[in-house]
Amino acid sequence: MIIKVLTLFPEMFQGPLNVSIIKNAQEKGLLDIEYINIRDFTDSKHKKVDDYPYGGGAGMVMTPQPIFDCYESTIKTLHSSSKPRTIYCSPKGKTFHQEMAIEMAKEKELVFICGHYEGVDQRVIDELITDEISIGDFVLTGGELPVAVIIDTIARLIPGVLGQQESFQEESFYSGLLEYPHYTRPQNFRGLTVPSVLFSGNHKEIEKWRRKKSLEITLHRRPDLIEKAELTEEDKKNINAFKNHC
Amino acid sequence: MIIKVLTLFPEMFQGPLNVSIIKNAQEKGLLDIEYINIRDFTDSKHKKVDDYPYGGGAGMVMTPQPIFDCYESTIKTLHSSSKPRTIYCSPKGKTFHQEMAIEMAKEKELVFICGHYEGVDQRVIDELITDEISIGDFVLTGGELPVAVIIDTIARLIPGVLGQQESFQEESFYSGLLEYPHYTRPQNFRGLTVPSVLFSGNHKEIEKWRRKKSLEITLHRRPDLIEKAELTEEDKKNINAFKNHC
Repeated sequence: MIIKVLTLFPEMFQGPLNVSIIKNAQEKGLLDIEYINIRDFTDSKHKKVDDYPYGGGAGMVMTPQPIFDCYESTIKTLHSSSKPRTIYCSPKGKTFHQEMAIEMAKEKELVFICGHYEGVDQRVIDELITDEISIGDFVLTGGELPVAVIIDTIARLIPGVLGQQESFQEESFYSGLLEYPHYTRPQNFRGLTVPSVLFSGNHKEIEKWRRKKSLEITLHRRPDLIEKAELTEEDKKNINAFKNHC
Repeated sequence: MIIKVLTLFPEMFQGPLNVSIIKNAQEKGLLDIEYINIRDFTDSKHKKVDDYPYGGGAGMVMTPQPIFDCYESTIKTLHSSSKPRTIYCSPKGKTFHQEMAIEMAKEKELVFICGHYEGVDQRVIDELITDEISIGDFVLTGGELPVAVIIDTIARLIPGVLGQQESFQEESFYSGLLEYPHYTRPQNFRGLTVPSVLFSGNHKEIEKWRRKKSLEITLHRRPDLIEKAELTEEDKKNINAFKNHC
């Protein structure tokens, strides 16, 4: 997958997407991310990239010219003949979720435009953007962090990025419940012990315990997910038992 | 505000929290972020910090010993006598939102523990964590990016970090609607023009236009927000007009 990131702050990406799994994906050639500085494309003598909003109000708005020119120069380097999927993050976008990431992971080329300050001129969104996305109901200093979040989420879904065993694990996430608790060595840490079922060797009992824990935590924290999850008859029995207990 | 980040990958934070507004906040002394490497606290000869999960399954789980020792060493350096607010990010946490950030921005000291791989041993969560938070319904390669997102969101709410004018703007975000479109120079860019009301000089008309646009976009993209927003009689009239139009 080829990803082009158009930003005023390429240096913001140096840390988060250059370690661990995403670093390996790039070294293996599964992922090619290029950061392009929008400021390099401004016609302005003083390298200006923003200006006051028409109609007044706080903050500065990124002007259309450097972004349009940067975008046009970028898409010339891409292979697809059609307009690439072009993503812009803002609090007024569609809320990002795993199913959206799975669908985007199928693309061969993605372009991200990062807003900063009060965001970009609306004409950029109207003309260049195919997907305006929000990662959640909170306000950030710029679009760089949400773009890094989306790239991280998508990149780990590209075939070969995660090991086979990890990918398998993946599926269990999508059953629609929150994950059960994890425990590792030592069995006894300062008097805090691991639930004994986990070293019983009885895989059926372990599965039952984990499913029950997943249900319990989902019911407690995200009851909205229960309604959409695929539930077995035993799940429903367990849910009723939890509810009666509370 | 003092923030301590316990992580296996301190280098992931070098980019995102070291530019623009958050960099200025640190230079002005309004924010002091320290990154502490959990690996420096492992008792293991081979600097091991993770192990296989009890009960089987894919992925590695971060062991409790290095995290507990790193945490205890860290909180000794803090001023508060009571246990500091300690945040852990995972998909099974409570969903992060702006009101949560506003409340957290009142704290003097915050500790973040970043999970990686399959996450941390449940005993870390049970004993050390006060807030388990999710930034959204998607799966990342580690807890570092969501922690950077939360710090960015909180940091800009610390008094003095944003200019007075920007802070004022802030409040309009919290009226519960999505933001209206922004436009800046030039008035005509490649034949794409700015809505004329915005350079009419009539502030009342500009306000009316912006409010109407906010309602329209919120109704279209996030109807769930409309139900919770504070609406005027004119808003309600506009909403009915949009609905009849569609």
